[in-house]
Amino acid sequence: MARLDVLDLVERARGGDQRAVGRLLSLVESGDVARLREATAALAPHTGHAHVVGLTGPPGVGKSTTTSALVTALRKRGDRVGVLAVDPSSPFSGGALLGDRIRMGEHGTDEGVFIRSMATRGHLGGLSWATPAALRVLDAAGCDTVLVETVGVGQSEVEVVALADTTVVLLAPGTGDGVQAAKAGILEIADVFVVNKADRDGAAETARQIRNMMTFGEKRDWTPPVLKTVAARGEGLDALVDALGEHREWARRTGERDRRRAARAGAEIEAVTLERLRARIAALRGASGLDSLAGRVAAGDLDPYAAADVLVPAISGLNGAGVTVAGPSGA
Amino acid sequence: MARLDVLDLVERARGGDQRAVGRLLSLVESGDVARLREATAALAPHTGHAHVVGLTGPPGVGKSTTTSALVTALRKRGDRVGVLAVDPSSPFSGGALLGDRIRMGEHGTDEGVFIRSMATRGHLGGLSWATPAALRVLDAAGCDTVLVETVGVGQSEVEVVALADTTVVLLAPGTGDGVQAAKAGILEIADVFVVNKADRDGAAETARQIRNMMTFGEKRDWTPPVLKTVAARGEGLDALVDALGEHREWARRTGERDRRRAARAGAEIEAVTLERLRARIAALRGASGLDSLAGRVAAGDLDPYAAADVLVPAISGLNGAGVTVAGPSGA
Repeated sequence: MARLDVLDLVERARGGDQRAVGRLLSLVESGDVARLREATAALAPHTGHAHVVGLTGPPGVGKSTTTSALVTALRKRGDRVGVLAVDPSSPFSGGALLGDRIRMGEHGTDEGVFIRSMATRGHLGGLSWATPAALRVLDAAGCDTVLVETVGVGQSEVEVVALADTTVVLLAPGTGDGVQAAKAGILEIADVFVVNKADRDGAAETARQIRNMMTFGEKRDWTPPVLKTVAARGEGLDALVDALGEHREWARRTGERDRRRAARAGAEIEAVTLERLRARIAALRGASGLDSLAGRVAAGDLDPYAAADVLVPAISGLNGAGVTVAGPSGA
Repeated sequence: MARLDVLDLVERARGGDQRAVGRLLSLVESGDVARLREATAALAPHTGHAHVVGLTGPPGVGKSTTTSALVTALRKRGDRVGVLAVDPSSPFSGGALLGDRIRMGEHGTDEGVFIRSMATRGHLGGLSWATPAALRVLDAAGCDTVLVETVGVGQSEVEVVALADTTVVLLAPGTGDGVQAAKAGILEIADVFVVNKADRDGAAETARQIRNMMTFGEKRDWTPPVLKTVAARGEGLDALVDALGEHREWARRTGERDRRRAARAGAEIEAVTLERLRARIAALRGASGLDSLAGRVAAGDLDPYAAADVLVPAISGLNGAGVTVAGPSGA
């Protein structure tokens, strides 16, 4: 793709052209770093408008249903909305099950909604390396709100907090979700709590648990509201949209938004840098170097730190693949 | 701690001295790389005996209860048993809730059982950077089996597979656990499936779901058995111990064990190497370099790839902290 084509795509995407947005999203996902760089440079000046909302929580809590209902509620208020669903797809099969995505089908014909599922394979953490780039596409396309939905509990939630202007943590009644969430450290990252499936037994109890656990947490300027929704029936979504708006205003006013965005940029730079260094390690894997070091560590006659002593300078000085690493003789 | 002390600790740990094992585990968790290296070098020659079993599955499935029941069953057969429970503790609070661990209390006075909870903070993936080192301690201490229990669904499961000789995936009846597990890619990593809480409705259905999904998966030499347990009542644990033994024998015979252990060593070398490079990035964070780059990326007047262009050579050539990075002028 020539430079002119990318600039043309960016121009059309800014006008809200669904096809152009789709092609740009594919481009940033393609793993072609040269094109990714080109697109990023062209998009960057047109970003900063979108309110980035992260949605996370344990499996089975209804994240996709809530995301879909939230899209409906935001559209009613006239927002242009983007959705990035980040699936921890298998590094073995390389595929993501798309069942949840099908439920988003109702928005498929809406010109004001942009939906994309992204895989996470190949990345160090839970979030796709392409996520920040895709956010930039949707932001430049004029989205007022971009919802980033992640699957699972753990590391990926922490990455959402580094990424989102506002983070929503979803829990369901019963099954000790509150305690599990506390263990996974996701209570601290929530700007807004949602107890979904609130028509089930135990919703009030779960909400109470969350409030109790918060009182043990760090004091913050912003006290996360605990909302109840039944996303499958569209109940409670207006209150959620209001809460998102309130947090956005608070974050703007206090400078929290700018602090988060700078942290987000720092994390992205670090990720890009580590990815590049990781690629250098991968280049050594095929060579005799890393494999023979690994064999010696597995056999117990070399320790991994000594192996790293060999690798680090090899990576720093590496100008291409096919480098053979000369290991030290013995442990 | 002097070198002699570490060697003395290792010697006493090899004899099964609980106190010495505990002190070595604390040492490898301390983050003191020099001592970690020393201990690793002293331990490495005494490793390779332990059968490393990873246990994983969604939150609430009863992993800690199953681990505890499995310890009881293994002890009955005369095994010396180690347990590493890896909690994705909050990077914010830095603490792990220990509720589950208390349930392991019944083994607390058993001289043939070594239990340790480890945090995962600061690591790129779900597993603690200290886990391979702690495995080495328990292996050298003469454990026949080491159980590594992880919390959550996602990245950490993939790391378990890189670590364990045998991987057990736990699911519970109902709540679509099977489908959620497939989405998280943990069906492919299982050597043994356990449907825990099998006295609940839907256990047979969940087992059937797993078997059905396996038939769509890759053909393998080893067909993972699907077992049912009620860990809280100790039911089904003997069959699980048998299945672990069968997989261990199969893996030894086919060379799969050696392949996994070499891959595990390679992953550890890579992790140690990346951690060292990451530390160099962190050293740049405090300096004016990374922060000012991040500010410019957040403002949209520099792209993260250009920022990485500046960082990579700075990291490669870095000999200490306090380096100021000169950025390029503009995007």
